[in-house]
Amino acid sequence: MLAESAEKYRHTRSTTERFCAPLAIEDFVVQSMPDCSPTRWHLAHSTWFFETFLLLAFEPNYQPVSADYQFLFNSYYNGVGKQFPRARRGLLTRPTVADVFEYRRQVDQRVMRLLSELPHDRATEAARIVELGINHEQQHQELMVTDLKHLFSCNPLQPIYRSPSDRLATHTPSNSAVWSSFAGGVTSIGSSAATFVFDNECPRHQTLLQPFEIRNRLVTVGDFLEFMGDGGYTRPELWLSMGWSAVREQQWAAPLYWEQRQGQWLRFGLDGLCPVSADEPICHVSYFEADAFARWSHARLPTEAEWEQAAGTLEIRGSFLESEHYHPQPCGPDCSSPITQLFGEVWQWTASPYTAYPGYEAASGALGEYNGKFMCNQYVLRGGSCATPRSHIRSTYRNFFPPDARWQFSGIRLARNPKSQHESSMPNRSA
Amino acid sequence: MLAESAEKYRHTRSTTERFCAPLAIEDFVVQSMPDCSPTRWHLAHSTWFFETFLLLAFEPNYQPVSADYQFLFNSYYNGVGKQFPRARRGLLTRPTVADVFEYRRQVDQRVMRLLSELPHDRATEAARIVELGINHEQQHQELMVTDLKHLFSCNPLQPIYRSPSDRLATHTPSNSAVWSSFAGGVTSIGSSAATFVFDNECPRHQTLLQPFEIRNRLVTVGDFLEFMGDGGYTRPELWLSMGWSAVREQQWAAPLYWEQRQGQWLRFGLDGLCPVSADEPICHVSYFEADAFARWSHARLPTEAEWEQAAGTLEIRGSFLESEHYHPQPCGPDCSSPITQLFGEVWQWTASPYTAYPGYEAASGALGEYNGKFMCNQYVLRGGSCATPRSHIRSTYRNFFPPDARWQFSGIRLARNPKSQHESSMPNRSA
Amino acid sequence: MLAESAEKYRHTRSTTERFCAPLAIEDFVVQSMPDCSPTRWHLAHSTWFFETFLLLAFEPNYQPVSADYQFLFNSYYNGVGKQFPRARRGLLTRPTVADVFEYRRQVDQRVMRLLSELPHDRATEAARIVELGINHEQQHQELMVTDLKHLFSCNPLQPIYRSPSDRLATHTPSNSAVWSSFAGGVTSIGSSAATFVFDNECPRHQTLLQPFEIRNRLVTVGDFLEFMGDGGYTRPELWLSMGWSAVREQQWAAPLYWEQRQGQWLRFGLDGLCPVSADEPICHVSYFEADAFARWSHARLPTEAEWEQAAGTLEIRGSFLESEHYHPQPCGPDCSSPITQLFGEVWQWTASPYTAYPGYEAASGALGEYNGKFMCNQYVLRGGSCATPRSHIRSTYRNFFPPDARWQFSGIRLARNPKSQHESSMPNRSA
Amino acid sequence: MLAESAEKYRHTRSTTERFCAPLAIEDFVVQSMPDCSPTRWHLAHSTWFFETFLLLAFEPNYQPVSADYQFLFNSYYNGVGKQFPRARRGLLTRPTVADVFEYRRQVDQRVMRLLSELPHDRATEAARIVELGINHEQQHQELMVTDLKHLFSCNPLQPIYRSPSDRLATHTPSNSAVWSSFAGGVTSIGSSAATFVFDNECPRHQTLLQPFEIRNRLVTVGDFLEFMGDGGYTRPELWLSMGWSAVREQQWAAPLYWEQRQGQWLRFGLDGLCPVSADEPICHVSYFEADAFARWSHARLPTEAEWEQAAGTLEIRGSFLESEHYHPQPCGPDCSSPITQLFGEVWQWTASPYTAYPGYEAASGALGEYNGKFMCNQYVLRGGSCATPRSHIRSTYRNFFPPDARWQFSGIRLARNPKSQHESSMPNRSA
Repeated sequence: MLAESAEKYRHTRSTTERFCAPLAIEDFVVQSMPDCSPTRWHLAHSTWFFETFLLLAFEPNYQPVSADYQFLFNSYYNGVGKQFPRARRGLLTRPTVADVFEYRRQVDQRVMRLLSELPHDRATEAARIVELGINHEQQHQELMVTDLKHLFSCNPLQPIYRSPSDRLATHTPSNSAVWSSFAGGVTSIGSSAATFVFDNECPRHQTLLQPFEIRNRLVTVGDFLEFMGDGGYTRPELWLSMGWSAVREQQWAAPLYWEQRQGQWLRFGLDGLCPVSADEPICHVSYFEADAFARWSHARLPTEAEWEQAAGTLEIRGSFLESEHYHPQPCGPDCSSPITQLFGEVWQWTASPYTAYPGYEAASGALGEYNGKFMCNQYVLRGGSCATPRSHIRSTYRNFFPPDARWQFSGIRLARNPKSQHESSMPNRSA
Repeated sequence: MLAESAEKYRHTRSTTERFCAPLAIEDFVVQSMPDCSPTRWHLAHSTWFFETFLLLAFEPNYQPVSADYQFLFNSYYNGVGKQFPRARRGLLTRPTVADVFEYRRQVDQRVMRLLSELPHDRATEAARIVELGINHEQQHQELMVTDLKHLFSCNPLQPIYRSPSDRLATHTPSNSAVWSSFAGGVTSIGSSAATFVFDNECPRHQTLLQPFEIRNRLVTVGDFLEFMGDGGYTRPELWLSMGWSAVREQQWAAPLYWEQRQGQWLRFGLDGLCPVSADEPICHVSYFEADAFARWSHARLPTEAEWEQAAGTLEIRGSFLESEHYHPQPCGPDCSSPITQLFGEVWQWTASPYTAYPGYEAASGALGEYNGKFMCNQYVLRGGSCATPRSHIRSTYRNFFPPDARWQFSGIRLARNPKSQHESSMPNRSA
Repeated sequence: MLAESAEKYRHTRSTTERFCAPLAIEDFVVQSMPDCSPTRWHLAHSTWFFETFLLLAFEPNYQPVSADYQFLFNSYYNGVGKQFPRARRGLLTRPTVADVFEYRRQVDQRVMRLLSELPHDRATEAARIVELGINHEQQHQELMVTDLKHLFSCNPLQPIYRSPSDRLATHTPSNSAVWSSFAGGVTSIGSSAATFVFDNECPRHQTLLQPFEIRNRLVTVGDFLEFMGDGGYTRPELWLSMGWSAVREQQWAAPLYWEQRQGQWLRFGLDGLCPVSADEPICHVSYFEADAFARWSHARLPTEAEWEQAAGTLEIRGSFLESEHYHPQPCGPDCSSPITQLFGEVWQWTASPYTAYPGYEAASGALGEYNGKFMCNQYVLRGGSCATPRSHIRSTYRNFFPPDARWQFSGIRLARNPKSQHESSMPNRSA
Repeated sequence: MLAESAEKYRHTRSTTERFCAPLAIEDFVVQSMPDCSPTRWHLAHSTWFFETFLLLAFEPNYQPVSADYQFLFNSYYNGVGKQFPRARRGLLTRPTVADVFEYRRQVDQRVMRLLSELPHDRATEAARIVELGINHEQQHQELMVTDLKHLFSCNPLQPIYRSPSDRLATHTPSNSAVWSSFAGGVTSIGSSAATFVFDNECPRHQTLLQPFEIRNRLVTVGDFLEFMGDGGYTRPELWLSMGWSAVREQQWAAPLYWEQRQGQWLRFGLDGLCPVSADEPICHVSYFEADAFARWSHARLPTEAEWEQAAGTLEIRGSFLESEHYHPQPCGPDCSSPITQLFGEVWQWTASPYTAYPGYEAASGALGEYNGKFMCNQYVLRGGSCATPRSHIRSTYRNFFPPDARWQFSGIRLARNPKSQHESSMPNRSA
């Protein structure tokens, strides 16, 4: 079992480092906003995770590579110790990038040795920590993409991480969007966890759904331009109250990374500044924008349970980190199929606040801080994105961000109540 | 029908004004924080509501008492027009308090005349608006209590609104707290609305509950002092991440309005500064504190569906606005009954984020802004408080506040999963 | 001597209260920004000053009217004790306005009795404190005018303190502005203090002036409109760096209290909203605006020593508090005289940072906090304004405000270096 | 003449780069606070200065190395064009450090060619710009030292720029501080500019000084520890009002870069963390601290005119950038001489707000923005520091910083009024 763990470990660690290859040392260091972290910090923190929860726990008398790193690269685990303040991660120029890669190398060696030497009776437990650490590092792979994009977007030189590949000449017919109906009823969601899942996906449990309809494909740039053209960003009646405040205070008039030049909308990406493409999924919108677009569409966002029922046992297909597009791709030939684009491309905002499933229990110890303590004022997103590793996503996976977050690859899928339900009158309801 | 409306209208309006009787003119004017409004603003805004949605809608050629008031006393209805900024309500010294009472008088006269003269075919619709306006004014009655309390608490003189009444010498036995079990299953919550309800209580719909247990009574001051004595405010592992930030940034070490003098805890109230009383329900805690207390208790907060199932068809008893305590009272003789203190005393934080029920539709027009646009980053509270009018509350009623709000009469009731459920193991769950 | 003190005391105290006569109780309570105080606070604080520095110091066993007032109405005297935070003065609704007037009455009685009973050997010292307290109260009379104006300006109803009096049909000829020349040289400024002065006017001392020219009259609204018309608020080269930041951050495009309606500039005042009048002195400009206007005029602001030399022994004439205009008046018939409008109308910004005169020593004890501790990042203004009591001003008087302050009646007088000096070349000077 | 300019140019440019030799690439990139700039920005901006004011002005058809750099590396010259926001300089990871050195190389080549080829009639003008640019770059050399120190201080690893050299075992006798008397009178200060000076040092002009005494040496760490031990940071009566606010809001309890461990005070420096040394000049104090220390000492800070008179025609001796201590050194053998330590070690706060000298005129064009527009809310410092190039300083040199700035090498020298003056009474002065 640990041989397999070791193999996955090696693969994950090298994937992380491969993404860094095109970067200049300068690019590793800077923090462009408190929500983002420097690339170097991601490299070090994911290493700290293995050192702390694996080496320190399983290797007798293990001495940390550096006592300072234990403090500097702890993200938010109060159970482990104090943390260097998140918003100041960009103030550290030492350890250098080379130091951090050396830190990775040393921890990798020790992990490899541990996995080859660990006695049988601890193997299961260690394998679980390794798997958790791999999934943790995969999350940081995605953040490395989104945080680098944000950093580069702050630079008027608009640095290019990698030149654009040839684009697929895909066309998404405007009539390709159809509603797929689901009957609702008592259904089970969440994971029974025969394989690795995060604690927030558990336990698998029954829930009751009303009948619903869900859109077969993602909302496109073209769809969203219609919303913008219809005054979407200037009509308060379309917005949640907090969303409307965000529009005015942050002066939102388009998705993040968009700018208008001579009447044309351009979007910044890791491949530079390009005209927007109508067929691509809309991206870098907040929950507030997704919600307003849905209201404008006389629809709504799906709940996470609806999304999960729709996903059912569909095969996981789409653009992921491995395709190295770092940008959502248009819907291909299966664009008119009853349900498509559920995975990859962009995370799909759901209408569901991020809460504990019934019977949820956080893990014990410091690892219990992984998910549970963030269950407040965030919304669930489903399906993964073009920056998510393929092996990281599944239909029960719950991502979560605050409703004003826009720097993730986040997009929109619509849902609605069936017609018959619309017609039922509610005569005494007021206000 | 309109005769009954008129009677209720008169009663509600005079209740509002009776609360103002002990106030000095100065007390009507000041806004102590952005969430609070001056008493005078509440008086004027609740009048504006009737003028806007009743008189302007139903009375031909109605001329507003003042065009300025239409702007100054609109709270947040974009559909009606622009609004004077909420955080600046305390900058207005004119119209004077006397002007505002005169505004109330004029609108009252016109409403009375309208209700007596309105043709039959518009009576039903008008009655619904009157009922909505009454319920709206009742909400502001409660806010007048909580906002005045906050204002007085800012004054080192600690003004007394009304001298304390004789306190009930009630003792809540420490062993009085028991768990009541509910079987869960498919149950209906929400309102089918034969009588007035708010749109957010609709539609009545089925939901699926797991078996659960709920505490028969509210958490008391004595219970909460144990939490404090056990380091409750200093242990990050008990708190949500955002809650722990609030503790540190706002330096919370006790409920709002508490202060320690010579080792003794005192609490400020409309009856002045008194020692805390162990038997009273704990009050003026945020969702964060309620959640942390529950975690410390190896329990959790109930969901709103659980609370509603527990409330069932219980009679509504407890201390309300009419009792004029303006402070939650200890549990009386029925303290050990299987379920008690569901209504009145303190609003009970639930674990449920404030969201739309399945099939929810906001009212059309400006009144649609009443509830729906606030469904974001707030939590549902149930049951009413000692500042809620008795006729205002019901088992389906959904109040909502952000998780850090403390100036409402908000308290705690615990719930938990049944034992058997605890023992089920989840072998592959990680992180 | 004390009989004269008592008479002045009575006069000052009643002047303060006379200004309050037109106010509604509501108007006394509110604080419109941290720099302003509620009227009621001014009434109480000026009373506290006499109670603290006179009654407590001179009357054996004096008991304060209220121990709370000692804390609530101390402005910034650390030597006396703790202070209620300045920015929260508007949160107090108690003591009520009536309570504060009662406080004044009681202190007045005790002061009167003290002054009639005090033994000879302490009379001189007491008379000095009375005189200081009177001058202190006069400063607060001016602040009551400016703070009330600011408060009313926040109200869209634009309350009128007093209806406008008939305006003088004065015309200020545009060619009336002339330069008056002064020879400079060693001159004495400051006070030798045969009568009451503040410590910051002392000691009288010699200073060396270069030859200079000063404008005979104040800058008018008409002059300033030319500056605005020439892009004054949009050209960074005219501004100090901090001034330009203020323009952009606070979006200044005109003096405070100005607004444009249908192409016409109006200004708000205690007499309501009126069209601006070209002949009046410009008012409610910051040091930054004064400095930018001077640069645009190829001139500069006078230093305070230049101003004081120009003032020489001129008779003090102009509009003061007693004229009850509460607004600067146009230059009258003497408009073309060599030097005019030195006193009254508007405070004149000088180029001089507010610093200690050579040999300055602050008074000992808490009264030493009156002036000295504010000698940082403020600029000196000279001459008094239409809100300054006539008996309060003199040619050595130094007022001071931060360079971005605009809510005082502050205006502009120009100065410049004589031509000959301009022509001197400075060949090696760089950068 | 231009040959000499070229030689100085080469020397200055290489001095700048030599300072960078020990840095890791990461160290060049980060901005630790808005007042500081990344090292790389200093390197590029000083190059931009030569490119803009020399190459673009003197070389026909000169094409900038990069149009982007014209925007990115303009500091605050509105006359040249828009500027990248100062507080965001640390967000740029491109151009890389290597790119910036290449930028320097290209500009250096062009400057060298220009200086060798320029026709005679433009040589004088060009030489002046070169000299200005050299002085400008020297200012940035000093800022590179102070900004790097601040950056490193934010890192818990406390990086060492260079290991400490052997320290001089100098002892400053506690009785070495003596007062030197000056007679005052009409004196001339400022520069008549036979050689290069900044415009703010001109014109040389007469001023009138009262008699004064000035301390022969700088205030030491030992002196300042006495102030701290006497409650210096906890006694509001010692502080300016704004200073006392800074103490409380920024929680000052010692000079910047000091920390206490086990009862001992340590100070961070480019040579790491060391115990403070009593004989060294106190350093990294704000104007507020200097002023409070002076008040505690029953003394005051000198005015800049007093300082300049005391400096007279003394030889310039002390530690400068070239000594590469980057830390002020204790007073040597001449410690008891009548006046010493006037130059080098630490900038000396004066009591003088930074204002224009009488007759001051800013240069025309964009270079006029160099000094004049900052003459507001800053204080003059004199004498240079251990980070100032030796050839950069002179007795007329005026440095300036806001009164709360602490990250420069800023220290204290005391002055006072002669005794006889103290004894003069001012009987009628009040308040």
